[in-house]
Order: sequence, then structure tokens, then C-alpha cells
Amino acid sequence: MTISSFFIKASRAFQGYPVAPKLLLLGTISSGGLVAYAESQSDAGPPPIDSNQNEVRKKKVVVLGTGWGGTSFLKHLDASQYDVQVVSPRNYFAFTPLLPSVTCGTVEARSIVEPVRNIIKKRRGEIKYFEAECVKIDAANKNVFVRANTDTTLVGNPEFSLEYDYLVIALGAQVNTFNTPGVEENCHFLKEVEDAQKIRRSVIDCFETAVLPDLSEEERRRNLHFVIVGGGPTGVEFAAELHDYFQEDLVKLYPMVKDLVKITVIQSGDHILNMFDERISTFAETKFKRDGIDVQTGCRVVSVSDKEIKVKVKSKGEVCSVPHGLVVWSTGVGTRPVVRDFMEQIGQANRRVLETNEWLRVKGCEDVYAIGDCATINQRKIMEDVLAIFAAADVDNSGTLTIDEFRDVVDDIIIRYPQVEHYLKSNHLQDVTNLLKDSKGNDRKEVNFEEFKLALSLVDSQRKSLPATAQVAAQQGTYLSKCFNRREQCEANPEGPRRFRGSGQHHFNPFRYKHFGQFAPLGGEEAAAELPGDWVSMGHSTQWLWYSVYASKQVSWRTRVLVVSDWTRRFIFGRDSSRI
Amino acid sequence: MTISSFFIKASRAFQGYPVAPKLLLLGTISSGGLVAYAESQSDAGPPPIDSNQNEVRKKKVVVLGTGWGGTSFLKHLDASQYDVQVVSPRNYFAFTPLLPSVTCGTVEARSIVEPVRNIIKKRRGEIKYFEAECVKIDAANKNVFVRANTDTTLVGNPEFSLEYDYLVIALGAQVNTFNTPGVEENCHFLKEVEDAQKIRRSVIDCFETAVLPDLSEEERRRNLHFVIVGGGPTGVEFAAELHDYFQEDLVKLYPMVKDLVKITVIQSGDHILNMFDERISTFAETKFKRDGIDVQTGCRVVSVSDKEIKVKVKSKGEVCSVPHGLVVWSTGVGTRPVVRDFMEQIGQANRRVLETNEWLRVKGCEDVYAIGDCATINQRKIMEDVLAIFAAADVDNSGTLTIDEFRDVVDDIIIRYPQVEHYLKSNHLQDVTNLLKDSKGNDRKEVNFEEFKLALSLVDSQRKSLPATAQVAAQQGTYLSKCFNRREQCEANPEGPRRFRGSGQHHFNPFRYKHFGQFAPLGGEEAAAELPGDWVSMGHSTQWLWYSVYASKQVSWRTRVLVVSDWTRRFIFGRDSSRI
Repeated sequence: MTISSFFIKASRAFQGYPVAPKLLLLGTISSGGLVAYAESQSDAGPPPIDSNQNEVRKKKVVVLGTGWGGTSFLKHLDASQYDVQVVSPRNYFAFTPLLPSVTCGTVEARSIVEPVRNIIKKRRGEIKYFEAECVKIDAANKNVFVRANTDTTLVGNPEFSLEYDYLVIALGAQVNTFNTPGVEENCHFLKEVEDAQKIRRSVIDCFETAVLPDLSEEERRRNLHFVIVGGGPTGVEFAAELHDYFQEDLVKLYPMVKDLVKITVIQSGDHILNMFDERISTFAETKFKRDGIDVQTGCRVVSVSDKEIKVKVKSKGEVCSVPHGLVVWSTGVGTRPVVRDFMEQIGQANRRVLETNEWLRVKGCEDVYAIGDCATINQRKIMEDVLAIFAAADVDNSGTLTIDEFRDVVDDIIIRYPQVEHYLKSNHLQDVTNLLKDSKGNDRKEVNFEEFKLALSLVDSQRKSLPATAQVAAQQGTYLSKCFNRREQCEANPEGPRRFRGSGQHHFNPFRYKHFGQFAPLGGEEAAAELPGDWVSMGHSTQWLWYSVYASKQVSWRTRVLVVSDWTRRFIFGRDSSRI
Repeated sequence: MTISSFFIKASRAFQGYPVAPKLLLLGTISSGGLVAYAESQSDAGPPPIDSNQNEVRKKKVVVLGTGWGGTSFLKHLDASQYDVQVVSPRNYFAFTPLLPSVTCGTVEARSIVEPVRNIIKKRRGEIKYFEAECVKIDAANKNVFVRANTDTTLVGNPEFSLEYDYLVIALGAQVNTFNTPGVEENCHFLKEVEDAQKIRRSVIDCFETAVLPDLSEEERRRNLHFVIVGGGPTGVEFAAELHDYFQEDLVKLYPMVKDLVKITVIQSGDHILNMFDERISTFAETKFKRDGIDVQTGCRVVSVSDKEIKVKVKSKGEVCSVPHGLVVWSTGVGTRPVVRDFMEQIGQANRRVLETNEWLRVKGCEDVYAIGDCATINQRKIMEDVLAIFAAADVDNSGTLTIDEFRDVVDDIIIRYPQVEHYLKSNHLQDVTNLLKDSKGNDRKEVNFEEFKLALSLVDSQRKSLPATAQVAAQQGTYLSKCFNRREQCEANPEGPRRFRGSGQHHFNPFRYKHFGQFAPLGGEEAAAELPGDWVSMGHSTQWLWYSVYASKQVSWRTRVLVVSDWTRRFIFGRDSSRI
């Protein structure tokens, strides 16, 4: 009993979860909304959900999706200010960068997921979550149509709609098959937790089938040929994980087929990891070569059948056929149908993903925001506003801009047009006024409009679109929640940069992405990383850095402890090969 | 790096797994069989599986099933003496007594499974495992027909047959629906790991559906009504787990429906846990009543539909209809089709399970053994042999048996007919010679045949059939493996009791079950237990005993560590409610 009470105490201290009465109390104080709950429950009266409150109506925020964007939005939102409803077909947040580890059991699926309800119950105020999928966004009527993702034998109308005042679209992306025939039917993907679990079972399936009696060696080889299409971080990490899984664990259990296993990475570009620094690509390719992982660059997959994959070698133009046991398709991201439909409604039909402005508001649509992989920021060109900027800066209307006049607006320019900073950096210009130097590098006291325009003419080449990563989505979610939290305050006292077209200030500073680097684990306790400041790090120590960063980035203490204990378990006992 | 090498060292010390070269060496020394492997692999020659060996042909043992019986057989078998092949559709052993814990995430599914290949690779000699299902046993030709349980897209002939010299049937049992309409389609079962995982998802599904908007209170109640059919240990433990899951975890996440949840246990008998001591039944019923778990005794389920379950109250004869969100069917065990087919072949068609003799050999069939839930031992009646016993004991052919003559055979009698010992115990007889006392309790110097027969006439009433538990199956597996290990030795020097019919001795002592007690966890950190010596223990301390026993009984150090860390994780962080 002493041990048990220790645990219970430890549990409370650790979790910091409010127990139910505290939750009610908190709810009562912060919004009053939960009072209705508590009462209607105690007398088992009418259903406590959807209780109308008589207080001042809060703005309704509907959040679609509980991935990186949606979750980080919810984690930082002051939910007491809004009536928040969250819709997602998965009632958990998944730490997707560890999905490749889940495919081989280095980390368990449960260790990288955290229930959405656990996350939202810690927020101030009340957030309603519905396990359902958004099937249509009706921007004209500010409505979303939703279909519940639950077992059909249960009762209740699975389709309903939700009204919103503000909509946050964080639906992520889906796999992009580039319409390659057979991919949908015959390939594994690596977007969801279920995908990773399925791959794990299938890998064991390949081994169990390969060791059945009466197979020819060719058949065994075929079953043990693992093909990864796409040499990006996910594909490469999966290949590395699979190689480790085989070398460290499976070889002991299936020694009879140890020489028949083959892993192939098919990459359309000339190098794998080509979004990384060249040194990392080379390092990865060398390591894979040493490990016996076959990297086929410059190859495009033409079609996939259940037993073969047809590949076109770009340089030769030949199509060759490769037998396989398992194919994992990991190339780029595509638009979800519901987002595509919404884009057609708002005149973005010809775009690849939803276009937002620098404040993450969807263009062509009021009160709708989009974050994460389903959206991209269209960074405004400074050239479009150059006349307005000049006019605003030229306070004495002299037709020329002095250094001092320029200095007065430069902060606003840099905030509004981040490409200016990138441009300065890439041209090694220490001070922003260097922009106004003449073509020979001599200081100028003042510039006229044409000279000003010329000085800024190359700046827009530094506009960058952000990668479809967890890091971007998470930062966008946090940024957006902070805007929501301070909406009224900033409407009264805007804190953004000056509006060069129009008057006054923007309410908020635009979103700015801060890149903290990116990892590529390469197996065998080695990793490569691109760190901030264009640093590159490779090898065993980088893998340990990877462990620390990934442990620290977990969404809760629970998942952090689980992930670390999974790693430890793997070191001690190896990976499990049960096919469940 | 230091940490990494520590882990690697720790890993080796802990696992005691031989690394690959050691395994090869071991294999080489012990059987020579693996030499062929190593060589054929190094030159990548013909498929290394099914290599014929030129040495003296070993007897082929085929083991069907890797549950408690099959696994404990394999764990103790000296595989160097036989050519062992194992067939099971699941490539892992599951610690089934923890399945109810898996349904609610108290323990993770992976923590209670151990790959068969991990278990068999530690044995001396080589054991082949095939992930396949036995579809037919052909006893006449000593053949089993097998179908691989693998993905259909992989190549290879999924159907093949295996010859045997000895067959060990350890196929377990399947759920018994008693042909109740709708059970197969609409109920969950709790026999396999997949069943437990499915229940876990479905429970969350019920909650997520119940909190969707636009449901009436009645619909919410219906979705949150959990029905358990069967008041045996599994059903009761599941009910208790579910209640804890709700009270300790889900109530915090779904506070809006906390008064709508209901758990009902339907039991056809008059009490739940009726195979236990009456005190335990009462304790369990009282605890369930206090917890608000509805126990409906004396009720028989007539049919189950997707939304309702029809129950006949035996005392009133009424049939009432109960709406439900989820039904778990947990009543008794039935025969698997392949076993049923085999029973028909060997003239056991009218029996419920396979009948074996006391040495676990299937009756009516040479060289086939059956253990675990698919079999039952038909304990020979002493009355059938009483004449032979008397004749054998009466060495001087005097027609009477003296105390000394009786003493000479009594050990063999007690070993051959365990009911004698049960009879002595239940009649509180200290010494076996007490059996020969006359009806008034006076010692007799000698008894004639009729007096001897009368003295033993009630003994057979103490024949007991063993329960279908993990404990029985495991003991049978261990016993059988020891017989297999010492087959030649014991054929030369039999160690069993005297054959009263015929001459000489039995090769082995018959199987004898030793009951170590049984637990019934009741939730809220309380459990009940029946311990050896008719002791009964109930309450919190019994739960801690349960923890210790279940931790110690794990099949490997890996699962032991995982189970204990799962329990700890649950104490600290609660159970996960992600629907994956």
C-alpha cells in the first residue's frame, strides 16, 4: 500500500493533471461553461453537450486537424476567449518524425502519440473535440461539414455541420502518387501511425514467407527485396532503420536467409537527401554503399504491381522491372480532396496548396487561416510596394530619400519583407543602409525613386517558400494562437509594421520562420544534421544529438518517458519481431 | 560512445543471446545441421532451407501451436535429438492471462508477446518454425497439411504438408458461441492479442461517438453501455479493468458523459466466478455492486444484434432486450475445426475435446500427443484394473492380500491412479493402509478380493478433469518435453509405475497436475485468489501478490521488464486513450 500511495502521489506531481473536481472548479472560474456541465450531469438531465449559454456569445473557432499545426495552435490558444471546436479523424497527436522508427519497432506506436483530449484539457477554457473528418468547407456560409469516423454499429447521426467565425485549416497533406499506376494499391506509405504499424507487420511477413519450405532461392530473394521510392529524409531514414533492424535483430532470427535480403532506394534526382547540404548527401550515399543499401539515383518509377516495380532509368531511357516483397512510397506531398475543393471555391483552383498571406490568412477568404503542409505563404514582393514605400519614407516629399529617412522605415520594411534580411545576409551586407550605396560601393547621401527601385530590384529573388515540415507547421500554429490570444488587444493597439499601402499599422507582425536545423538519421547510430548557421554535423555524436533533441521535443512528459524507455529497451533487448 | 558501448555490453549480459557466430558454432557442435546453413549461405548456393543431412535420420516432431502448451514444450525440449518443426499462425507466444489488461491499455500488447523464434533460438539444436495454420491432420499417413498465414501478394506456395514421426497438438480452443445467433458478427472476443487490441479501439470509439453533437441522451447511454457475457475469470477481469479505465482515466477526458456509462455482466449461473470458492464469488459480487457494475445472474443470452442483446431471465422466463454499445463474449471454450476433423478420423467424434491417456498420448492414435485446451486426460478408473491389481499384489497367490503385499504395490497404485491420493485426502486418511480397514475402522491383517474391491470402490469418484487454463497447458508441455528428452533412456530403463495389466513398467510416470492457485483481479487494486491448500486471499495485498506472480511468470526478461514498466507507467501517467 505504501508503494501504491507513493505511485499515486508521484503520479499527481508528475502529471500535473488536475483531478476532476479541480477541472470543474477551473472551468467554472474561467468560463462558466462547465458549470452547466456539472449541474446537468448531477441530475442526469438533458444531454450536457451543446448546452447554450446565456452569456455574451464568444466567437466560434473551428480547428481542422490535430497534427503539428493544429496541436501547436491548441496548445498555446487561450481557449477561454473563444468557443473552440476541434475536428480530426484521429483522436491523438502523433510525433511524426519518429514514424520511421515505429516501422521497425525501435519506438512503439503508442509512445509517439498523445490523445488530443489530454492536450486540450490542460488549456484554460473549454475546447470541444469531435473525432470526425471534415468533408467540406463552405466558406460562403462559414460552415464545415463533418463526418464522424466511428464504428457504424454505434448509434447517432455521423454527419453534422459546424458553424465558425474563424476557421483554422491544419489538415496536412496526403501522399502524392503523381498518378503512377498501381501505387495506391501496392505501396505502403509513411504518413500515419497506422501506416508505420502496417509496414512493421509486412516486413515480418516478408521474412516469414521467405523461410517457408518449397520456395526457390529466387522467390526468397523476391520476398526479401525491400524497395523505398523517394530519397528524402523519410525514405532514407526508413531504409536506415530497416537495415539496422535486419542487421541487429532479424539476422539472428532468420539466419537462413541472411544473404538474400536487399534494400533499394529509388530516387528521381541525382542524389538522395538533395534538400540537404551536399556534404550530407555524399556522407549518406557513402554510408549506404558501405551498408549494402542499393541507391538508384536518376530513376523514375513508371508503375507498381503486386510483385514488380517498373523503373525508368532517366539517363538511358530504359525501363527495367524489379521484383519486390515490399514497396514504401515516400515522395512528396499532395493536396487532400477537401482542401482541393475549398481551393476551387475561393479561386485558388490552379494552385498546388492553399495560398495564405504573411499572417497565415487564406487569400480570397475572410476569417480562414491555414497552417502546415496544406498551406504556403505567398510572401509579398517588395517590388509591388516599392512606390508606396518610397512615398511613405519620403516624408518631406522631396522626391529623394535620405539615409535618415530610409532608416526611419527600414525596420518596418525588414519585418514586412523578410527577403530583405535574406538578401543582406546572402550578399554579406552588414548594414541595411549599404543597400543605398551606388554600383561602385560608394555611400550616397540620398537616392531618387529609380535608384531606390534599382537598389531593391534583386531583393525579391530571396523570397523563400517554407518546406513542408513539422517544424514549420508547429511554429505557424504557435504564431497563430498568439495572434488569436491578442486579437482584441492588437486591434486596439496594433503592433505590426507600418502599412505602406494604406495607413496605420498591421495588427500583428507577419509570421516568421526560424529554422532550427534538420536531422537525417542514417542507421548504425550515425546521423547527419544541418544546424542553424549553415553548420553541418555528421556521425555518431550527431545521433546522440538527435536522441536529445527528439526526446526534448516530445509533446508530453508521458511520451518523452516512453520514447526514451523504448530506446533503452531497444539497446538492451533489441526490437520485437512479433507480427501483431 | 561510452554510453553506447555500455548499452551494448549490458545488452549482451542481459540478453544472454548468443551473437550470430556463436549461434553457428553452437549449432555446429550440437547437431551439425547448421554447418550446411553457414556454407550454403557463404557461397549463396542453393536455398539453405530443407537441406538434407546425411547423418542418421532424426525422428521428426511436428508441434502445432505456440500457446502455453506448445511453447512450454519447446522451451524444455532437447531439440538436438529430434528434427523439430513448429507450425503456428502467430509467430509469437502471448501471455494470455494479461489479455484483459491489454483491452484497456494497462499493459501494452507488445509487452505480453515474445517471438517464437526468440524462444526457440535459445534451445539446443535446431527448431524450424513456419508461420502457418494447420488445416488438416492426416493421422493415417502421419502428415499435417498447412496453409501459410502470410500476405497474398508475396510469392511462394502457401500450402504445403509436413510429415511427422511424432505429432504434438497444442492448438488450444476457440470461442464457444453455443450457436447463439448474431454472436459471431456482433460480439468481441478475448482469446487473441488482436481481440484485445480491437476491444481497446472499440471502447474509445464508443466514447468518441457518445460525445458527438446531435445525439439524444438515450443514444449516448446506448453507446456507453458495455455488456460482458460470461462471469468467468476473463469476463470479470475485463469488467473490472474497464471500470478502472473509466474511473481513473476516461472520466477526466469525457467528463460530459460520466453519468451515462454502464457496465453489465451477464452470467447464466447463479454467481459470477462460480468455479472459485464461494467466499470469492461473494466478495466479487459485493465489490462490483459497490462499483456500480451491474451483475445479472441467471440470465441466458438468446441473440445479439448490432444494437441490442436479447436476454432470457431464467427465473421468469421473460426475454428482454438491452441496447448496447459493445458486447464482449467470454463464455467457455469450443473445439477448433481442424481438431474436430481429426477427432472424427480417430473415432472421437462424439467427444467435446481430444481424449488422451495419462501420458498425454491421444487415444486411438499412435505417436500423437495433445496438450492444453484442445485435450483432456481420461484418467483410468481403478475399478477397471482392480482384478489385475489384486492379482499382481497377491504374490503368493493365496487369494488374500496382506498389509505387506499391499504396501509393495501401493506406490505404483498411487502414481498410476492419482484419484487414490485425492480420495485419501478428502477422507482425511493419514496412511494408505487405512484403506484396508474394515467398515468399523478396525485394522485387518489381510483382505480378500471382494473386500479389496469394496475398499477401493469409492476411489474413482475423485477422478478430476483438469480446467482449461494456462497453468495446466504449461505443465503438460513441460512434462511432455521431458518425456521426449528421455525417450530412449526410459525405453531402456523404464521409470514409470508397474503395468498391472501386462508385464514390466510404464516408461514414464503419468502426467500429474500441480495446482498453484488462481487469481481473479477485481479492479481498484483489489484481487481475489485461491491459493494451494484451499487458502483464499482477497483485497489489496492479493493484488500485489498478483503483480509479483504475474511478473515472475513472464516468458522472458524482456516481457518481464516491459510488463512491470507498463504497470509503473500506468501508475504515473494513466492509460493512453489514443484510438490506434
